[in-house]
Amino acid sequence: MNNNKFSFELLHADSQTAARRSRFHTPHGPVEMPAFMPVGTLGTVKGLEIEHVRQTGTQMVLGNTYHLTLRPGEDVVRELGGLHDFMGWQGPILTDSGGFQLYSLAKMTKVDDRKAVFRSHIDGQLLELSPEHAIRIQEALGSDVAMVLDHVIGLPAPREAVRDAMRRTIDWAERCRAAGRRDDQAQFAIVQGGLDADLRVECAQKLVDMDFPGYAVGGLSVGEEPAEMLQVLEATVPALPVDRPRYLMGVGRPEDLLQSIRRGIDLFDCVMPTRNGRNATAFTDHGRIRLRNLKYERDPRPIDENCPCAACRRSMGYLRHLFMAREMLGPILLSMHNICYYQRLLADARDAIEADLYEEFCKSKLSGWAKQEIE
Amino acid sequence: MNNNKFSFELLHADSQTAARRSRFHTPHGPVEMPAFMPVGTLGTVKGLEIEHVRQTGTQMVLGNTYHLTLRPGEDVVRELGGLHDFMGWQGPILTDSGGFQLYSLAKMTKVDDRKAVFRSHIDGQLLELSPEHAIRIQEALGSDVAMVLDHVIGLPAPREAVRDAMRRTIDWAERCRAAGRRDDQAQFAIVQGGLDADLRVECAQKLVDMDFPGYAVGGLSVGEEPAEMLQVLEATVPALPVDRPRYLMGVGRPEDLLQSIRRGIDLFDCVMPTRNGRNATAFTDHGRIRLRNLKYERDPRPIDENCPCAACRRSMGYLRHLFMAREMLGPILLSMHNICYYQRLLADARDAIEADLYEEFCKSKLSGWAKQEIE
Repeated sequence: MNNNKFSFELLHADSQTAARRSRFHTPHGPVEMPAFMPVGTLGTVKGLEIEHVRQTGTQMVLGNTYHLTLRPGEDVVRELGGLHDFMGWQGPILTDSGGFQLYSLAKMTKVDDRKAVFRSHIDGQLLELSPEHAIRIQEALGSDVAMVLDHVIGLPAPREAVRDAMRRTIDWAERCRAAGRRDDQAQFAIVQGGLDADLRVECAQKLVDMDFPGYAVGGLSVGEEPAEMLQVLEATVPALPVDRPRYLMGVGRPEDLLQSIRRGIDLFDCVMPTRNGRNATAFTDHGRIRLRNLKYERDPRPIDENCPCAACRRSMGYLRHLFMAREMLGPILLSMHNICYYQRLLADARDAIEADLYEEFCKSKLSGWAKQEIE
Repeated sequence: MNNNKFSFELLHADSQTAARRSRFHTPHGPVEMPAFMPVGTLGTVKGLEIEHVRQTGTQMVLGNTYHLTLRPGEDVVRELGGLHDFMGWQGPILTDSGGFQLYSLAKMTKVDDRKAVFRSHIDGQLLELSPEHAIRIQEALGSDVAMVLDHVIGLPAPREAVRDAMRRTIDWAERCRAAGRRDDQAQFAIVQGGLDADLRVECAQKLVDMDFPGYAVGGLSVGEEPAEMLQVLEATVPALPVDRPRYLMGVGRPEDLLQSIRRGIDLFDCVMPTRNGRNATAFTDHGRIRLRNLKYERDPRPIDENCPCAACRRSMGYLRHLFMAREMLGPILLSMHNICYYQRLLADARDAIEADLYEEFCKSKLSGWAKQEIE
C-alpha cells in the first residue's frame, strides 16, 4: 500500500478454488470482497435514488471519468463538494480512467505515446486525454480509487498491436503514479495484453514491480468468448500479489462473476444489471426473465419471492404493464431488482467462501442459470 | 352517506373564510382534508416508487379510468388484486370516470345521451363509454371513490352546449348511481355548468337531491381565467351540502389550491407537480425554479433547505446536471420534491385552518409566490 488510508485484509482463502474472502479499507469505509460495483456513469446509478442504491446492498459505486469530464466537468463536481457529496454517496467510489470509453464510445480516437486525441460522442468537440490529465480529473472528482489510464483495443487484434497497447499501458501507469497528489486516493494499475497469456504475465509483472495498491484486469469483454476471458484470468491472476485487491473491469454476467471469483478476482463493475433492467429483463436464480412476454400479463407472482427489493413486492403482471405503458417505474424497479440480485449473489459468494463451500455454491448457481428459458 | 364504510367529519370551520378542516373515512383509511391527490394515471405516480409516494405525505392517490381500461385493462387489474394491490398502494384511491379524457385526449369523441363513442389515443381503436360502463370499470379497479361519468366541454362554449352537457351529466349521475354494486366504493357526483353560475347552482341542486356521499366541481381548468374559476366556486360551493367532501377536479397551481380552499374546497388532484418535475421545474415558497438555467450550474444550495425530500438533500447544481445529462434521476427527484411541496402546503393549510389563521397563511404564501422570478 502506498499510504495508510487504504489497506487490504485477506480474510479467508477458499480451500478448493482460488476464491478469496477479503476486505478493502478506504477513506469512505470498508468494502467486503468479492464485491460488485453498480455503474454510476454520470454521478447517478441510472434510475435509482441514492437511498435505493444503498438498500440493494451496494458498498461501492463506479463513476466514469470520460462521462463526468464531458458533463458537468470535473471543476463543477469539485466545486460541489467532489463526487461523494455531488451524488450523495458517502461510501467508497472508484472512478475509471476513460481508457475504455476512448475505445468504445469516443469518435475518431487517435492514440500515441503522449496522449489520446478524440472527439466527444456528444458534440464532436476535439479533446485530449493524457495519463496526467486522467489523474488530474479523478483527483478533482475525489474518488477513493482512481484507475490509471490504459490503452484498450478491440479483440481479436494483431499481436503487435496488442503488445504496443500493453507497452503503452505500462508506460502510462508509471506516469499516472508520478502525477498522483492526493493521499486519500489510491491508484489501481490495469493489466492489458489481449488474449495472449505471455503478454498478460509480462504486463502484470512490470506493474507489480511498481507496487500499486490494487490491480485490475482490463481489456476484456470486448468481443472475446467467455472461455477466452477465463483463460486470461487463469494466466494473469497468479502473477498478481496476493495482498492486493484484484478488479476485473466491465464484467459481467452472473456466471462470469462466479467463474472469475473462482479464479481469484475480488471486484467487479458492469452496466448489465441496470441496462437489462431498463430493457425489461430481470435476473433470477433460474435465468433471465423478459417481462414484456405476454405470458406474464396476469401473473400474480413476484420475480423472486425471496428477494427483498421493492420490485419483488409487486406482481410480474404489474411490472409487465409498466414496461408496456412505457412508465419510468418499470426501469426503476427492475434496475433495483437486478442490482439487488447481483449484491445478494456476491454476499452469498462471500458466505460460501468463508464456509469453504464456494465450489458447491458455484455449481448450484450455474446449474440454475443453465436451465433458463430459451431466449 | 350511502353506506357506513364512508363518513365525513367536519372538524373545524375557519372563522374568516369558507375554508374547512375535515376528515374523510374510507375503507382504506382516513384522509385529512383539505388534501391533494397526486395523479397515478396508469397505476403509478410517474417516476416514484410507491414508498417514495408515501414519504411525500400523500394520503390518497388518483387513478385514471380511461388510461387503465386501455392499458392494461380493468380485468387484468382485477385479477391482480385490484388497483390497491396492483400498484402497492394500501391507502385510499379515487378513480376518475374518463369524462375529462374523453374531452382532452381521446380522438373524435362523439357524445349522445346514451354514451360516448371515441377513438383510443394509443391505437385509434373505436371504443365506447357509457355511465354504466364507467362504473363497471371502476368497480373492477376497486377504488375507494368512483367518479360518475360526466360530459366535459371546452370553454368558452355556447350556453346551449353548456346546458346540454350539464343536463346529460345529471342524467348520467343518476345512471351511475343505479349501476353501483360495491358497498366498499363511494360515488362522487360532478357538478358541470361551465362559467354560468345559474347552471352550476341548478346542476348542484339536482345532484344534491340524489344524496351522493361526495361532490366534485368539474369542467374547470379547461381554458378559463383563474378568476373565472374562482367565481364558479363562489357560486357553486354554497349549493353543496356542508357534510360532504367537495372535490375540485384537475386543479391546479399552488395558488389555485389555496384560493379554492378559501372558498370551501376539500380535495384536489393535478398533474402539475409531476409534469413540472419531469420538465425540470421545482415549486418553492418563492415561486418556481427552472433548474436548466445556467445560473444553477455551480449552485451548492438545495431547492429548499427546509424540505425533507430526497431532492433537497442534493445541490441545485447536481439536479441541473441530471437534467442536462437527461438522467432519469432528475425527473424522479423533482417529482418527489414537487409532490412533497404540495403535501407540505396542504398540511400547513390544515394547521392554519385549525388555528383560525387561514387568511394570514394564505396571504403569506401568495405574496411569496408573487415575488417569483420573471419567467
